[in-house]
Amino acid sequence: MIDFCNLNSYKKLKDLSLSPPDLTKCLSNERFNDYIMDNDPLKILFSTERINKNILAELFNLANETHALKKMENMQSGQVMNFVKGIDCENNKVMHTATRDVFDEQRGTKESKFFYNEILKLKKFINENNNKFKTILHIGIGGSELGPKAIYKALSRYKKNKIKVYFISNIDPDNLFSILKKIDLKTTLIISVSKSGTTIETTTNEKIIRKFYNNKENYISITTPNSQMDDLARYNKCFYILDSIGGRFSSTSMVGAVTLSLSFGIDVFMDFLKGAHKMDKIALQTSNNLPLLSALLGIWNINFLNTSNLAIIPYSESLSLFPNHLQQCAMESNGKSISQNASFLNFKPSGILWGTQGTNAQHSFFQFLHQGMEISAIEFIAFKKSQYEEDMIVDDTTSQEKLLANLFAQSFSLAKGHKNENKNKNFEGNRPNHIILANQLTPATLGSLLAFYEHKIAFQGFIWHINSFDQEGVQLGKKLSTEILQMIKKKEKMTDNYLYNYLKEMN
Amino acid sequence: MIDFCNLNSYKKLKDLSLSPPDLTKCLSNERFNDYIMDNDPLKILFSTERINKNILAELFNLANETHALKKMENMQSGQVMNFVKGIDCENNKVMHTATRDVFDEQRGTKESKFFYNEILKLKKFINENNNKFKTILHIGIGGSELGPKAIYKALSRYKKNKIKVYFISNIDPDNLFSILKKIDLKTTLIISVSKSGTTIETTTNEKIIRKFYNNKENYISITTPNSQMDDLARYNKCFYILDSIGGRFSSTSMVGAVTLSLSFGIDVFMDFLKGAHKMDKIALQTSNNLPLLSALLGIWNINFLNTSNLAIIPYSESLSLFPNHLQQCAMESNGKSISQNASFLNFKPSGILWGTQGTNAQHSFFQFLHQGMEISAIEFIAFKKSQYEEDMIVDDTTSQEKLLANLFAQSFSLAKGHKNENKNKNFEGNRPNHIILANQLTPATLGSLLAFYEHKIAFQGFIWHINSFDQEGVQLGKKLSTEILQMIKKKEKMTDNYLYNYLKEMN
Repeated sequence: MIDFCNLNSYKKLKDLSLSPPDLTKCLSNERFNDYIMDNDPLKILFSTERINKNILAELFNLANETHALKKMENMQSGQVMNFVKGIDCENNKVMHTATRDVFDEQRGTKESKFFYNEILKLKKFINENNNKFKTILHIGIGGSELGPKAIYKALSRYKKNKIKVYFISNIDPDNLFSILKKIDLKTTLIISVSKSGTTIETTTNEKIIRKFYNNKENYISITTPNSQMDDLARYNKCFYILDSIGGRFSSTSMVGAVTLSLSFGIDVFMDFLKGAHKMDKIALQTSNNLPLLSALLGIWNINFLNTSNLAIIPYSESLSLFPNHLQQCAMESNGKSISQNASFLNFKPSGILWGTQGTNAQHSFFQFLHQGMEISAIEFIAFKKSQYEEDMIVDDTTSQEKLLANLFAQSFSLAKGHKNENKNKNFEGNRPNHIILANQLTPATLGSLLAFYEHKIAFQGFIWHINSFDQEGVQLGKKLSTEILQMIKKKEKMTDNYLYNYLKEMN
Repeated sequence: MIDFCNLNSYKKLKDLSLSPPDLTKCLSNERFNDYIMDNDPLKILFSTERINKNILAELFNLANETHALKKMENMQSGQVMNFVKGIDCENNKVMHTATRDVFDEQRGTKESKFFYNEILKLKKFINENNNKFKTILHIGIGGSELGPKAIYKALSRYKKNKIKVYFISNIDPDNLFSILKKIDLKTTLIISVSKSGTTIETTTNEKIIRKFYNNKENYISITTPNSQMDDLARYNKCFYILDSIGGRFSSTSMVGAVTLSLSFGIDVFMDFLKGAHKMDKIALQTSNNLPLLSALLGIWNINFLNTSNLAIIPYSESLSLFPNHLQQCAMESNGKSISQNASFLNFKPSGILWGTQGTNAQHSFFQFLHQGMEISAIEFIAFKKSQYEEDMIVDDTTSQEKLLANLFAQSFSLAKGHKNENKNKNFEGNRPNHIILANQLTPATLGSLLAFYEHKIAFQGFIWHINSFDQEGVQLGKKLSTEILQMIKKKEKMTDNYLYNYLKEMN
């Protein structure tokens, strides 16, 4: 195995990056049409990236040289992909696509059968508990919250009932106590989600709630089999997630299934899975492979054009929490400094992923994107139709038309720029960006969009030859916070321990 | 006037940046205590920044050499600060501190008197309309929404009544129509906020609402005198903001005052202003000047240690929207590429500002902060006491103790790192960060914290010698979106216009 920077295609791309196309000069109708990839339900419009035919061909060579497609196949078919060679590590399969394999007769790994059984358990639970609960408290943090919450927000147009849903995540007591004031625990279903069953935020919040109301019927858990939270003495029901599904990739597992199905009906959740499955298949295609294209454009921007960050701007209010979820997916997966061969990297994988919905973002940080000195790569997401399909004509156009007009104007002007003798009104242009366009934000399209980003991130890890599926970087802080909590418990004056300085500041 | 990179102190700092202190080796109790700045209500713990006494002294020399304090005085006393020399520009005062001058007998600019009169109008309006409205729709975008919404969330513990508050900002029709389903317009106060009176998102959303219910009594506007929205034929009341207050600095003006006072009572809003005023005065001090210190630490990290971004992590659920507001404040203010002398910059001011509340962020992107290859500067915000002061002991500690233990563990471990032969468990450390600590998130403390960041951003602009108070970079996109909307209206086939390609994609 060879390192990223020693690849032939890497070297060729380095040469090509010395003279990337100048978008202030080259935008044409022909170029617009040449740089579209369309594979239902998503279409990528990427004439506004700083690429040309040579660069694009060489980027796909990079994918070939790193066996990116083969690795995607290996991942989806259940080979061990979560490893770093030669050192103590998780050494596990990466099975989030198995939760979507239930639609594929020819496949059906044991993981997908396991998941399908959980879905049957969930159907039974929903039938038995119809109309029993007025409120859901979804307790989880990180991978157990960001995805489900973003999807809940994105699909709220499909809400089937009046069940109020609250997400509690933070150990900050204000998070829990501000919500406890609003609800009646007797009619609340408390869903505790922790893969390990030991996440301190989740277990603590659950324990506090139990001090107010401890009726087993109201509590369910979502965890790995045999964890501390797999306990029918305390929970009405325990739903399972397999250890081979990473938290940040678990939205399509039971981690998302329970709260989303209770809110939208299980059919909406299954449509969401079908959409994800569709993209899983697209990710295996040798042509029109949308997530692979997106991964390569990202690598071009990060490693060859030296953008330090990626802004994701969905022109959709419903997707306002989606960038938060993708932030974890991308940054926890590829925020690494060693290769899968356990050597320190000599290049930067990933970067900051951040963003906010448009048009709001235009009124916040777009000044920086247009005229700032740090260049951001930008991915826009947009839909032709609104979700509610309710609109009005004001000043001769609908709001949806105004929304899209704004998006297109931004994509174009960031690339094209605008020369002005007044330097304060001058726009350099050449801000690389593209648009991911779909017809409408339905459950299926959202599933496709989620899987699109999951696979983009996985492809990037494959190409960089890093392990995208562990997160050892979160362990040190956990260990030290336990140490501080021990000091608090013991109340000893440990003046020889640097951490004791902080303790003095707490009072 | 000389350019930033030609300053004596810049050159000395460049030399000093060749050997910044190694935090993996130098943390000691003495260092902890040496790098604290305490000025009620905020305390900065910054032993975990890569500075030493020499660097700090030279950073303050940089402030002196650029007359940063004098410029702060000039700004607060009403001199024209919003300008770029020699070119067509806004050429205006920067008067957001005037909204807080009402507490200072010795000052009292004409702008503060103007604002005080608006507050009296608001008091009268609140008395006359007591219990009349069940719902508030705050319509505004960018500076007219991010601040008020973040403050509304931050102070929700102080809610005085049952009025439901919704914020509508996006032109996306799903934003408006999803909310219209939930409310009764007859008992709703619609507050339209636009400084210019012409913001397309705000005026369009208001026009659509009026098609459903057009009773003047239910509409008020917040705008500059004589704008299109200053119209008592259409609004029950018009409240004014002066043109010399920038949108992103307008939270303490009528832009924030109306919705916040209707929700929390005018006394809470005045406490919030008092807190801001306290920080305005601290920003003028020659010693213990908290925002100046913070500005200088930021400049050290950006311009000398080459961090591309700043993560703001409040360990407070109530501050979960605060980073979004600061994102606009910082990036729209200092995301510029020309100096105040109208020359192109040869250094990067500002960078991405992003962040999420802790502990949540630990479970999302902290992997990247600890082990990623792109170094982020990090500012933590924390409070000794929770807001609700309700808590429980679980496993011998309270949730508030767990929250702070996590914060301290993160700050320390990011700086200190941890050597491990297993490269996957190795932490390089030297991630620069500091903690802003206060007693409790009260209205006054929030005011101080907001003004702290406003002044930090202003100080950075003063030192970089850029104009932090305009936003010409948002104009090009606006112009082009209008052009696209014209094409939509006319329905002509304009195949010679590149923008027409996008139009074809809309259908």
